[in-house]
Amino acid sequence: MKRILLTIEYNGKNTCGWQMQAGGLRSVQGELTRALGEVCGHPVRVTGSGRTDGGVHALGQTAHFDTDCAVPPEKFPFALNIVLPPDIKVQAAREVPPRFHARFDVSRKTYRYRYYISRHPRPLLDDFALQVYTPLDAEAMNAAAAFVVGRHDFASFKAEGTEVRDTVRVMTAARVFEPAPGEVWFEISGKGFLYNMVRILAGTLLLVGRRKLPPEAMKEIIEAKDREAAGKTAAAKGLCLVRVDYPEEAFLFK
Amino acid sequence: MKRILLTIEYNGKNTCGWQMQAGGLRSVQGELTRALGEVCGHPVRVTGSGRTDGGVHALGQTAHFDTDCAVPPEKFPFALNIVLPPDIKVQAAREVPPRFHARFDVSRKTYRYRYYISRHPRPLLDDFALQVYTPLDAEAMNAAAAFVVGRHDFASFKAEGTEVRDTVRVMTAARVFEPAPGEVWFEISGKGFLYNMVRILAGTLLLVGRRKLPPEAMKEIIEAKDREAAGKTAAAKGLCLVRVDYPEEAFLFK
Repeated sequence: MKRILLTIEYNGKNTCGWQMQAGGLRSVQGELTRALGEVCGHPVRVTGSGRTDGGVHALGQTAHFDTDCAVPPEKFPFALNIVLPPDIKVQAAREVPPRFHARFDVSRKTYRYRYYISRHPRPLLDDFALQVYTPLDAEAMNAAAAFVVGRHDFASFKAEGTEVRDTVRVMTAARVFEPAPGEVWFEISGKGFLYNMVRILAGTLLLVGRRKLPPEAMKEIIEAKDREAAGKTAAAKGLCLVRVDYPEEAFLFK
Repeated sequence: MKRILLTIEYNGKNTCGWQMQAGGLRSVQGELTRALGEVCGHPVRVTGSGRTDGGVHALGQTAHFDTDCAVPPEKFPFALNIVLPPDIKVQAAREVPPRFHARFDVSRKTYRYRYYISRHPRPLLDDFALQVYTPLDAEAMNAAAAFVVGRHDFASFKAEGTEVRDTVRVMTAARVFEPAPGEVWFEISGKGFLYNMVRILAGTLLLVGRRKLPPEAMKEIIEAKDREAAGKTAAAKGLCLVRVDYPEEAFLFK
């Protein structure tokens, strides 16, 4: 039995998100499970690095599965992509030790949230970024993002109704910048995130960008440990899971 | 009666292209004609700067129409975007003189052709760029593109079966560059283009990028005045009409 780690890119627009759901909505996990069943010739259980919501995209989602089929690990992307739909494609595959776990072993995840400034919806951006009608102060947003870096209790950025005991997380990097005129990107890296945390951070940064809040408000919002203190949950379509990293040790066989 | 010039952004993926066609395929011109009829309250004839094929995108297509309705020119984007589909949205509108013509008055058009390098299809790029499996020599492509600038007979880059007497066109700029790792863009500006010319140039540049042809071959291919000498017509999805320019005089009322 071999354990294989996949890297997957997907456009989340026409999916219900990562996780398989009863009732037949198309999920990334479901499509991968079906494709792997066809390629491996036996039922396969797919374990992702974590869920993404419907509409959220991924450049580098990861997932592992076990198989005893004869397909060489490096051939899985080619074999799977033949049977996967156009909006979900495997970019890489490698064999990992049997103890490797796509979720438990994560050392860092990096997300990107994209905003675009336009008075009118832009068809070439609107599936991938949130429309904002007036200019954003990206410098102020970047100053606010700096308060997020480090070990904090992110209870203010936890979706209501989710059950997590420990809301302390460590963010290793967070920045806001303008990659092109009229576009603003928020990028954040950390070992783990609360459910909807990046989207609530993105919604809060939006208030700073619109100068409804000063950058320092981010510090106070964190300290409040109250979901009511933060901004709205920004739309799913602006979010992308850019990459998932693992420590080198996780890949060592022996 | 007022003449209004619109600037339109669209995702060409799920359209048959700019031009209305018998048989009900969804076209950009058709959607605009329908939307303008609803907004103006009378039938409207929409004249574009030129056609784009199905699958081709536009950041700044232009089109004019005449109306005597009471909608102020600057309100047309808002009024039209309410009734237009998500993949076609008007970005700007202005009143122009009655003699203005969206096609005949064009002083410059700028197109972009995008390639991406990847062994596997990339869902977040594949609607907007052509997948190339191995690295491209963007410097060589840029050197080849330089031969296109100036006044030339572009008969080698004319789609077979099209009837045009004069195949001489003037290109004012052409360059190839890497805007991000793994992406190559070809941008070209000129006063007018032959049907499929940019896509045939893009297919020919691909041969240079793959080092199947040296950059100087572009000069010989132009001189050959023979469609057989050039490369294949590159896929529509990689092409985008970036902008359409007019001389300032065209906007003068007097």
